[in-house]
This record gives sequence, C-alpha cells and structure tokens, in this order.
Amino acid sequence: MREVVIERDFTDMTPGSVLIAFGRTRVLCTASVEDSVPRWRRDSGLGWVTAEYSMLPGSTPDRKRRERNGAGGRTKEIERLVGRSLRAVVDMSRMAECSIYLDCDVLQADGGTRTAAITGSWVALHDACERLVAEGRIAANPVVDQCAAVSVGVVDGRAVLDLPYVEDSTAETDMNVVMTGDGRFVEVQGTAEGAPFDRDELDALLDLAIAGCTELFAKQRAAVAAPH
Amino acid sequence: MREVVIERDFTDMTPGSVLIAFGRTRVLCTASVEDSVPRWRRDSGLGWVTAEYSMLPGSTPDRKRRERNGAGGRTKEIERLVGRSLRAVVDMSRMAECSIYLDCDVLQADGGTRTAAITGSWVALHDACERLVAEGRIAANPVVDQCAAVSVGVVDGRAVLDLPYVEDSTAETDMNVVMTGDGRFVEVQGTAEGAPFDRDELDALLDLAIAGCTELFAKQRAAVAAPH
Amino acid sequence: MREVVIERDFTDMTPGSVLIAFGRTRVLCTASVEDSVPRWRRDSGLGWVTAEYSMLPGSTPDRKRRERNGAGGRTKEIERLVGRSLRAVVDMSRMAECSIYLDCDVLQADGGTRTAAITGSWVALHDACERLVAEGRIAANPVVDQCAAVSVGVVDGRAVLDLPYVEDSTAETDMNVVMTGDGRFVEVQGTAEGAPFDRDELDALLDLAIAGCTELFAKQRAAVAAPH
Amino acid sequence: MREVVIERDFTDMTPGSVLIAFGRTRVLCTASVEDSVPRWRRDSGLGWVTAEYSMLPGSTPDRKRRERNGAGGRTKEIERLVGRSLRAVVDMSRMAECSIYLDCDVLQADGGTRTAAITGSWVALHDACERLVAEGRIAANPVVDQCAAVSVGVVDGRAVLDLPYVEDSTAETDMNVVMTGDGRFVEVQGTAEGAPFDRDELDALLDLAIAGCTELFAKQRAAVAAPH
Amino acid sequence: MREVVIERDFTDMTPGSVLIAFGRTRVLCTASVEDSVPRWRRDSGLGWVTAEYSMLPGSTPDRKRRERNGAGGRTKEIERLVGRSLRAVVDMSRMAECSIYLDCDVLQADGGTRTAAITGSWVALHDACERLVAEGRIAANPVVDQCAAVSVGVVDGRAVLDLPYVEDSTAETDMNVVMTGDGRFVEVQGTAEGAPFDRDELDALLDLAIAGCTELFAKQRAAVAAPH
Amino acid sequence: MREVVIERDFTDMTPGSVLIAFGRTRVLCTASVEDSVPRWRRDSGLGWVTAEYSMLPGSTPDRKRRERNGAGGRTKEIERLVGRSLRAVVDMSRMAECSIYLDCDVLQADGGTRTAAITGSWVALHDACERLVAEGRIAANPVVDQCAAVSVGVVDGRAVLDLPYVEDSTAETDMNVVMTGDGRFVEVQGTAEGAPFDRDELDALLDLAIAGCTELFAKQRAAVAAPH
Repeated sequence: MREVVIERDFTDMTPGSVLIAFGRTRVLCTASVEDSVPRWRRDSGLGWVTAEYSMLPGSTPDRKRRERNGAGGRTKEIERLVGRSLRAVVDMSRMAECSIYLDCDVLQADGGTRTAAITGSWVALHDACERLVAEGRIAANPVVDQCAAVSVGVVDGRAVLDLPYVEDSTAETDMNVVMTGDGRFVEVQGTAEGAPFDRDELDALLDLAIAGCTELFAKQRAAVAAPH
Repeated sequence: MREVVIERDFTDMTPGSVLIAFGRTRVLCTASVEDSVPRWRRDSGLGWVTAEYSMLPGSTPDRKRRERNGAGGRTKEIERLVGRSLRAVVDMSRMAECSIYLDCDVLQADGGTRTAAITGSWVALHDACERLVAEGRIAANPVVDQCAAVSVGVVDGRAVLDLPYVEDSTAETDMNVVMTGDGRFVEVQGTAEGAPFDRDELDALLDLAIAGCTELFAKQRAAVAAPH
Repeated sequence: MREVVIERDFTDMTPGSVLIAFGRTRVLCTASVEDSVPRWRRDSGLGWVTAEYSMLPGSTPDRKRRERNGAGGRTKEIERLVGRSLRAVVDMSRMAECSIYLDCDVLQADGGTRTAAITGSWVALHDACERLVAEGRIAANPVVDQCAAVSVGVVDGRAVLDLPYVEDSTAETDMNVVMTGDGRFVEVQGTAEGAPFDRDELDALLDLAIAGCTELFAKQRAAVAAPH
Repeated sequence: MREVVIERDFTDMTPGSVLIAFGRTRVLCTASVEDSVPRWRRDSGLGWVTAEYSMLPGSTPDRKRRERNGAGGRTKEIERLVGRSLRAVVDMSRMAECSIYLDCDVLQADGGTRTAAITGSWVALHDACERLVAEGRIAANPVVDQCAAVSVGVVDGRAVLDLPYVEDSTAETDMNVVMTGDGRFVEVQGTAEGAPFDRDELDALLDLAIAGCTELFAKQRAAVAAPH
Repeated sequence: MREVVIERDFTDMTPGSVLIAFGRTRVLCTASVEDSVPRWRRDSGLGWVTAEYSMLPGSTPDRKRRERNGAGGRTKEIERLVGRSLRAVVDMSRMAECSIYLDCDVLQADGGTRTAAITGSWVALHDACERLVAEGRIAANPVVDQCAAVSVGVVDGRAVLDLPYVEDSTAETDMNVVMTGDGRFVEVQGTAEGAPFDRDELDALLDLAIAGCTELFAKQRAAVAAPH
Repeated sequence: MREVVIERDFTDMTPGSVLIAFGRTRVLCTASVEDSVPRWRRDSGLGWVTAEYSMLPGSTPDRKRRERNGAGGRTKEIERLVGRSLRAVVDMSRMAECSIYLDCDVLQADGGTRTAAITGSWVALHDACERLVAEGRIAANPVVDQCAAVSVGVVDGRAVLDLPYVEDSTAETDMNVVMTGDGRFVEVQGTAEGAPFDRDELDALLDLAIAGCTELFAKQRAAVAAPH
C-alpha cells in the first residue's frame, strides 16, 4: 500500500478539514454543517450526511475541465458512494436535524481518489461532530464506527492493493471496497475492465482489501487520537 | 426468481428490439446502429457499444418526472453499468467502426430494472448484430459470449433472489451481479442499505446470483434460438 | 385511414394506460394523478390537465436523440397541443384540485404521432377519471365529451387521411384537426410545406378530417365500453 | 383592424430593419445575413431563412422575465411559425448558400405580436434581399411573393379582426392566418380557448382574415415602394 | 462627445421608458416595478433596484447570438455595474419593499452601450419613481442624486471622450467612469487593452470623464424638466 | 499588509503550481499547458493565456455552493480580470500557438481572493513558461514583466491596504489595482459600496496600492529566484 498521510485542520473555516494523501493522490475533505435538512427529511428528527466530489483542473497532467454544466456520470457515482459510505456509520437520530456536507476536492489525482475521499472524509466528519458536541449543538457524537475504503485490482494476473493511476488504467479488474471498523462491508464494487474475473480472483481481492482497510483504520485512529 | 418473459421484435424500427419482463418490471430494450464511432475512437478500427436508460413517467405509481435538465446520478450510474456490461462480451474489432446504442426504457418499474435492462439488452444486441452480419455490414457477429444480470439482497436476514420493489426498498443489503455465459463476473456491486454485511452474507448472495444468472442464460438462449 | 388499435391497461401502475396504434405508429399514453395543482391554480377549486410527449430513441430508423437539455420546439408544441385539446373536454370544477398528467411516449413513429397521442390520451384520461370516481376521490367524471384528432394532407394534389411518415414528409400541405364528440373543432392547424393551399383545398381537407374523427370516436367508444 | 404603421430602416446595422406597429403592439424586425448555411444544408446550393422571437422585459405591464435558460414553448412555437411562413415565399435556390436571420423583438405587446412579426419581417427580408442584389452578392431577389399574417377571433360570439390583448385574452376562439400575396394560405391555426367552434364560425373567421391580410399586403407594398 | 438624445416614454407599458442615444448607439431603458423584494431582503423595510442588459441580435453588423443558455461574462459584468451604479443614488428606505427592474436592451451598438445604459436608466428610474409617488404607492421620491456614466480611452496616445466602437476597439486604455450629480465617483474602471498606463494618463482620463459626466447631468436635468 | 507566503510546486502534475497566502486567504494557482489555441486564434502564430476561478465549498464558514449550472456573475468577472491581467505581461508571439490555463481555486477565503489569485498566478505562469523553455517547446520565456494585484479600501474614512473579509464587507469604497513590474497600471477598479468617493480619496487609495504592489513584486522575485 502506498504511504498514507492524514493532515487535520488543513484549512480552518469549517469544523472538519482533512488533507489526505494516498501516495501522490491528495484530496482535501472538508465537513461543513448547516442547521437544516433537505425538504424531504424535515420534521423527521433525523439529520443528514451527504458528499460532493470534484477534481481540480490542475489535478491531472492533462487539464481536467470544470463540470460547470452539471456533474458528469463518474462524479455523481462517486458522490453517491461517498455519501452512502459515511451514512452507514452515522446515527442520524443524534444529529438534531442538521446536515453535514463532505466536500472532497482532489488537489492531485494519481488513482484511488474515491477511496482516499472516503477515508479522509471520515476523519473530517469525526472532527466536525466532536466540535458540534463541544459547542453543545448536539448531545453525543453520532459517528458510531470507523469507515475506510481501498481499491484493489488484478494487474498482470496478480492481485494488487491501492493502485496508482498507471496500474489502475491497465488493471484487468478494478474493485473498490468500503468497510466499517468492525470488519464488515458497506460497499463492494468490482468491475472487469478487461477479461471477466472468476470467484477465486474475487476472493483474493477481498482478502487484500480487508488487509488494506485494517491498515487505514489504524491510521485514522492515530490521526484522531492526536490533539488539535 | 420472478417469471422472466422475453419478447423479441416488439417494435420494428431498429434491428434489435426486446421487451423483457422480470415479474411486473418491463423494460423495452432497442438496439440502434450508427455508421460512426465517437470522436475519441475514430480511426481505431474498433466499434463502440453504449447504453442509455430512462424510466417513463407512468412506470411508477408516483409519477416519475422526466429528466430534461440532465440525467440524474442514478440514471447515469445505470447507463454506465449497462454499457460496461455489454462491452465485456463484444469483440469491438469485428464491428467495423460502427456504434450500437442500447436504449433501455422502463415501461413499468417494480424493482430490478437495471438487471432486466442488461439481460434484455443482450438479446437486442445479439439480434442487431445478426442482422448486421446478414446485411453484410460486418463479417462476423462480434458478440462473443452471453451477458445477464440479477439482483440479490438480504431481507429479514435471509438472502433473496430478484427482489421486487417492495422487498428491494426494505432490504438490508442490495447486490447487483453481472455475469458472462462462462460463469465469470463482469460486475459485483453490493451495497449495505441498513447494517453492513459480513463475508458469509456476501458469499451466500453470490451463490444465489450465480444460480439466477444461470437461469437467465437459459432464457436468453431459448429466446434467440427461436426464428423471428 | 390506417388500422387503429386501442389497448387499455397496457401497464398497470397508473389509473389510465393505453397503447394506441395508428398503423405502425404506436404511442403509450398513461394518465397519472397528483393530489395538487400548479401554484398559480391553487385555491381556485379547479383541477388541471396537462400533457408531456417524448419519442423513444428506438422509435425511428435513425436513432432519435433524447431531449436531456430541454425539450425541443417540436416537442413543446405537441405537448401544448395535447394538453389544450384534452382540457377542452374536461370540466375542471369537478376535479377537486387534483392534476392529471398525460404522458405520451412514442414507442414507434410512422407519422401521426401527435394525433394518436391525443386520441389515445382521451381513453387514458377517461379510464383514470372513472377510477377516481370509483375510489370516491371525485364525485362525477369530469370528462364531458370525447376528443380525437387526425392528420390530413395534400399529397400529389390529392387530399389524404392519416398520413404515414413517407407520405407526410412529401405532403404539400399538412393539417392536424382536433375535434370534440359533438362535431366541433378544438384545433385546426394547417401548414403549407410546399406550395400554399387555397380555400378549396382547405375545405376538402376539413371534410376528410371530419370523417376520420368520426371513425375515431367510434373506436374510442368501443374501447371504453369494454369491461377491464 | 387597428392602425398599422411600418417604419423602415429603424436601425442601421443590418440590411433590413423594420419597426412595425399594430395599434399599441410594436415589434422590431431586423434581417441579418450570414455567409453560410446550417451544417445539414451545406453543399445543397440552397440558402436558408430562419427566425427568432423575443419579448423585451418592459414590453408588458407585468415585467416579462428573460428566457435565459432556454426559450419557452410559446416562443419556440412562434419562431417556427415565423420562419416557416417566410420560407414559403422565398426561392432558396437564388440565395447562394447564405442565411438570413429574422429577429423579431417585441418592444411593446398588446396582442397580435406574432402576426405583426410576420408582416414586418417580410418587409425587412425584402429590404435585405434588395441590398444583397444591389451589392451583387446574389443575382436576383429570392422573395417571390408577399407574406402577411393577421389574428382573428370570436369574442362574445362575434368574429373580430386583429385582437388587442384585452380581447384576445377573453376570446372563445383564436385564429392566426398567414397568407401569400396571391391569396393562398401558408398557415391556418385555429384554437378554441373556451367552447369549441363549428364550421360556420371557422368560415366567418377565414373571411375576416382574408380581408385583413389584403389590407396588410397594401401596407407592405406602400412601404417598400417608398425610396429609402 | 457624441450627440446625446434622450427620448422619454418611448414605450408606454412601464412607468419608466427611455430611448437614449450616444451617437449611433441606442439603448432602450425601461423601469418596471414589482411589489416585492428578493427573498434575502424581505422584512427589511428596504426596497431593491436591479438591472438587466441585453444586446438585440440586430444591434451589430455581425449578428449577435441571443444568450439563451445563460448570460455571458460580459453581460453579467455590465448588469452588475448598472445595478450598483443606480443603487448608489437611491434611498432604499423610501421604497416600501418594492423592486425596480431596469432593463437595458441595446437596439444599436456603436460603443459605450454600458454608459448609455446607466445614463438612460437613471431617467427611467426617475420617471418610474415620480409616478409611484403620484400614485401614492411611496411617500417620497427615493432618487437622491443624479447618476451618469461615460467612457474615456487612450487612442493613439491621446485621451478621448465617449469612444465609438471603431475607436474603442483600438484604444490602448479603456475606462468607464460612473459619477453622481455632486461630482463624486461611484465606479472607476480602467483597463489597459494594449500597453499599461501610467498615473499621468490616468489623471488625464479622469479629467475628461468628469467633463463628460457634467455634460450628461445637464442633459438628464433638461429631459426630466420637460412635462410628459 | 497581511503576511504573504508563496509556496511553489505545491502540487506536481502541472508545470506551474503555487499556493499563495494573503493572511488567512489561500489560493491554489496551477498553470496547465495545452498544445492548441481557441478556434478564433488559430493560424495567428500567437498563443493564449486564460484563467478560471472557483471557491471550494469549504473555503468559507457558510458553505459555498458549487457553480454547477454555470459560473455566476462574480466568478466570471474575476476570471476575466485575472486573464486580462496576465495577458498584459505576456508576449503571445513567443508562445508557439499553445494555451496556458491558470486555475485559481480558493482553498480558504478571507478577502482579497482575486488579488491573491493574480499575484500567485503570475508565479505559476512564470514557472510553467520556464519549464516550456527548458523542454525546448518554446524558444524564449514569453513573460516580459511582473504582474501583481492588491485591494485597497476606505474603512471608517481611512485608506486601508489588503482588506480581510471583515473589513472588506464594511468598507465604504473597495478598489482592486493590478500593476506591472515597471510601475504602470493594468487595471484600476474602484467601487463605492456606501457613499461615493471623491478625487482625494481616489488618490490616497492609489498611493497605497502602489506601495502594496511594490512589496508583492519583491515577494514574487524572491520566490522565483529560489531553486526548485
């Protein structure tokens, strides 16, 4: 697995702000709080957690065009994935009808941006909730478990963990796995890019992903244990 | 599994046209051919296969609003899934730089629309390619294997195959599995809607999905074996 | 006139659902009910009837692109025509501030899609209203008369009824006529595609349209007389 | 009929520019020329004539919102009508693959804006073509006949010519008629706003429209006969 | 300075309507009143003044395309400038929570359209407010000072006042200056189009702009002094 | 003036990448190179420099909504300003028909984001051009002078340099000044937010801006003098 670095409070305008690096991939994850929930959720007593994702134009060697006429399919897919993943570890009944937006802006993209986004957003979410508790806006931290994600793939017939872009783009199979701190799955998304994969390959990829997430959970715990 | 009915040549304007039913779910899958490929693929000697998906407003009890200001996230996600799935069984080098559009329009939605769309689109694609061969526009049928998909889920702690809407909306886990005729996977997309799932549950769901796809392959073969 | 076939309850998610064929042209007309009216009509004691129209991509030999960046001029023109036509035979004061959406989705297009849409929508509207009465949501059926439409045209100097696409596209004059069951006009829209037309031609076209609508009224009555 | 005033060369940036008034209704019609035709018409040897229509925000007592997110249904309908009407009197083979845009901007709206737009655009088109001939860009004036339009309606059971807004909004039937100088019809668009209309009413409205257009043709001839 | 002509009540649907000419440049400025303010301003006791700007397609020799997919950068910049300028001379507390829209539609563009728009809008705003007072809708005229604008530029090394298009497009420096009747500045926007400018040039341009605005203030006073 | 920190090569995917801080304001400026120019500039022998600007959602205490349906007026105004400013110091004839995009993404916003964007973009542009020269893609560095910008304002009647948000939002007058290294002006944009300003105030603001830009030029020179 590439080196993972988690830098908390990278910016100071939002209650959660994390710059996470998976190798050369760097994603800024901020957690903003709003004192309302979407219309369809009002008067439910529940809060809401959602995510947005964007790649900065300079995040890739070939300039990435801004999505100003609506987000593209890939972007929306990632946003839905990040949001679902984090909601899986949040007890919305403790959120007092407020919304937390996790904004994942990719400063540099070298593969694994969505898994870095999930892993970093969890830290930003944790920090924001701690501050909400400290300010007395909510009674107890609604984050009930950790959540992290890693990509695995089959490259040249071999299962590989946390693929950088160069490997990712040539992988025969690409899988993103989102797990909770208790070792269960939130998402398993495996895609054959080249040849389809069989069940043995699937099992080998899952083994590797579990090992990767276990490592990420340790990084997250170390990060949030430090004072800030 | 709910009753599956495949009706070929439901309309007659396009070389492939299939109305597929998974229980009450009904999807019209048409295959249209264009004599060009997207710009980024020109002069590659390769063809292209892509998909679009839409739910008719009357396909659900609560009217579904048309997506006239851009397709939503769910729609784009499904379109990408259908396209990727079918490309996995097509040898693009046999397509002579033409494009095939698979349009999946849901006439009635009762859960499993994306898996019905994939399964039905394969038949429409097959028929369109047969006709291209018959007309001499391409030399050999580029469809090299079957492709089918099924949804599985955990409902009340039990693995269930091909969920109708009522079960789907209450499932703890929802998984879509796309397979090729030789028993391998193109896509495995498992999502915890409620509690995360563990590896045993994942394995049980995969077993069920394999059984379901096997049944669908038989239905597809029976369909395309009939004269039309 | 081409053969007209009206199939009620083609789908079963909406209170009205009609698949109507004018020759090879086939349009699915569904009637969905919502328990509210547009903002500008609130507290008027009146209901609302409106229509949307779309051609499926596979409805034509050359694939029809989806209108995802706003409906085009032709589409909006047809939607306004269908809505106006049906509102002409509805007593909105009997609708209890609910809205009925008539969605006309063209499965196969061979000329006359807008006239088929109007004629089929009337049956879907009738069925939906009957069910609203049966459910006790409204006291009396607000549909006070029949409504049907037909196209007529001048082809090679001769007035022709219900033009299929091949004739329509070469017609010198194209006219759509919408009538009510009592023999009056709701819309008369005549357009010279080639040479302008004189008053005699106009009169001959109107005669033909009246004959066509009379035939359609009989088909509609037969359809709604059958139990379902 | 309300007083009709045609002011040529109201602006001087385009080869045709006409401010036309039908009573209080005032529409600025400019004709701009481009040295190319739309892509689908290239290499046909034919030119193209098209129209756009817009109401200025201050043209109505209640401010009219600008259509900056796509033109609405009514606007597109009018644009199509104006373009079709003028194309009916143009011999495109004399236009040397150039395009003429007729822009109809309503400065003040008091009913009949679309008919004023057609009638005024004809003069702007005529002037622009005269100048193209004078400059030697085309060999002969492609405008082969006059074209004018008028609205008629049934108000309080009586056929009325050229309705101002107050009458138009209460008319039971509203009809727009576009004619050519030789007394034939390009468009006949009759719509029942309230009760449907019968054939006698239709005939009375047509008689009135013919009289109105005849008057407009005289006004147009007087306008273009004057030196400028 | 080019000849400036101010024609009040050019149209009669809005309480303020001014056609202003700076040489060949002609802008129609209408002032429409609405009995509400934007959401963010409600219950403040304050009114609102805002502006929109558009160039008609026929206002330039090369046809100007309509901005139907959102206003462009230049348009929005001008709209913001016009709105800010006029708000600088309005006491919003006297407006009784109504909004005034200044719509500046350029009929003919020959340079200086934004400065003509500001200068003409002031007259339209003045007239509209006078009428609001006359109707008793507001107690006192909220327009507390005059506001006018002029462009200045460096052409061939020489400071020039009120540049027509031909000079404007070749100017080395272009500056728009908005002033109030008491001789102070609301906006100073100087832009080097070619070589940057030094402080002496800036001072010379400001001197010229002050002279130009002084002349415009006299024109405005003469215009509003006349009965209408 | 607040502390200014310039960090070069903050990311490493683009030939220029600068994180610039003006106090708490932090803007990431990347320079991406494309081997083509916009269509209207082709075959001119000239290159092109343009800019885009965006605020990240987490850059402000109240979350800033992404501009996914088109950039707003303020954004476009800033983008045009940044692009114009940098083009003023570039000799496009040395750019070999390539385009440089300066992307200014605000990570944290505390006033002065546009002036930080210009000042930082100059360094990113310089670095990118140095690398283009080093790679032999262009013969000589086209950046012919420095360019920096600063905001000045009148707060409580006193001229103040480089306003943070809290002061900026209460300033009576706000002025942005863009200068070149030789002490001349590219842009002077002064706006009265409250009371209009007189000529003495204008002169005092310009004096202050000149002092600020002089300081920024020194910072830029120090930054680009360091090896990297």
